[in-house]
Amino acid sequence: MNAIDRLVVLFSKLPGIGKKSAGRMAYYILDTDPSYARLLAEQLVNLHEAIKRCSICGSFTEQDPCSICVDISRDSRIICVVERPQDVRVIEESREFQGRFHVLGGLIAPLEGINPGDLTIGPLLNRVRTEDIREVILALNPTVEGDTTALYIQKLLQDAAVAVTRLASGLPVGGELEYADRLTLSRSFRGRVKL
Amino acid sequence: MNAIDRLVVLFSKLPGIGKKSAGRMAYYILDTDPSYARLLAEQLVNLHEAIKRCSICGSFTEQDPCSICVDISRDSRIICVVERPQDVRVIEESREFQGRFHVLGGLIAPLEGINPGDLTIGPLLNRVRTEDIREVILALNPTVEGDTTALYIQKLLQDAAVAVTRLASGLPVGGELEYADRLTLSRSFRGRVKL
Repeated sequence: MNAIDRLVVLFSKLPGIGKKSAGRMAYYILDTDPSYARLLAEQLVNLHEAIKRCSICGSFTEQDPCSICVDISRDSRIICVVERPQDVRVIEESREFQGRFHVLGGLIAPLEGINPGDLTIGPLLNRVRTEDIREVILALNPTVEGDTTALYIQKLLQDAAVAVTRLASGLPVGGELEYADRLTLSRSFRGRVKL
Repeated sequence: MNAIDRLVVLFSKLPGIGKKSAGRMAYYILDTDPSYARLLAEQLVNLHEAIKRCSICGSFTEQDPCSICVDISRDSRIICVVERPQDVRVIEESREFQGRFHVLGGLIAPLEGINPGDLTIGPLLNRVRTEDIREVILALNPTVEGDTTALYIQKLLQDAAVAVTRLASGLPVGGELEYADRLTLSRSFRGRVKL
């Protein structure tokens, strides 16, 4: 196994990268100035050292607390609850939300051994109690685990003076009815809006 | 820009990797044991140092000459001519060919400023003259540049005692007529075989 093969094997471990893509990536690097490979290597080594969790919201950051938690121009009374740090990135890129975040670190999945105690639900309740929170938006995947977790959090918060909402689920924009699965179709019926 | 963003920017330069895939890759690395990032970084730094060109065929190798050029179990009388070193890998993986290779380093493309003199056509003629070659298989892309290059090499070799062949071009196996472009269809007609 030569240096190209070893790089291909490592690249193939990345999500969405098959053997062919990994090969294309390795040859691209070989065809490109070595400074690119060096820069990429530096960033890879640096990544785990530079990135930590925000002690308030739990998302990835270089400075603790993160830039979102300390940004006074954002609405501190709305918390958007997500499963993973990368969900924060997706929502930030949509520029749809101007409040703060809370990363659960997973979804309740008893069959996989993930129980409420494994998630940052306690700290979330604490934030709702101590910060001046008006709304908790549950931005969890519309899956069984997401539904379970949303229901669990909603029940814990039902006596708190806070609105608990969840992202709408239904047909993706630009998608076609024909290709929607039965559950999505069912949700889009139940969640239909008056025009 | 934090360490994740910097890694995403670098990953996005890789062929076939958009911003979303790059993000997924960066978060995967962050979620994975740091030893993976370190190993990947090492291989990246090592790549350009470890890999050189084979002085005979021009493909990428750690030892010069490469393992294919020194493998006496292979048929040294057939040379498969390819555009790039990665084409050698693709053909090797198909296990369809048991001869030797010759990497041109490109295709003739006057509009892009790539002329015959920029390719290893001279060394190819030399190999045909000095080695005991019976057949030269042109495994070049069925594109304008591939056609031009194939014709050019064929003309240079027409007085040599060597068969010059080219990979068949036509409908991809498993593909459907309906989705074939006009040129592919035209080639598959001209190259039709008797059953």
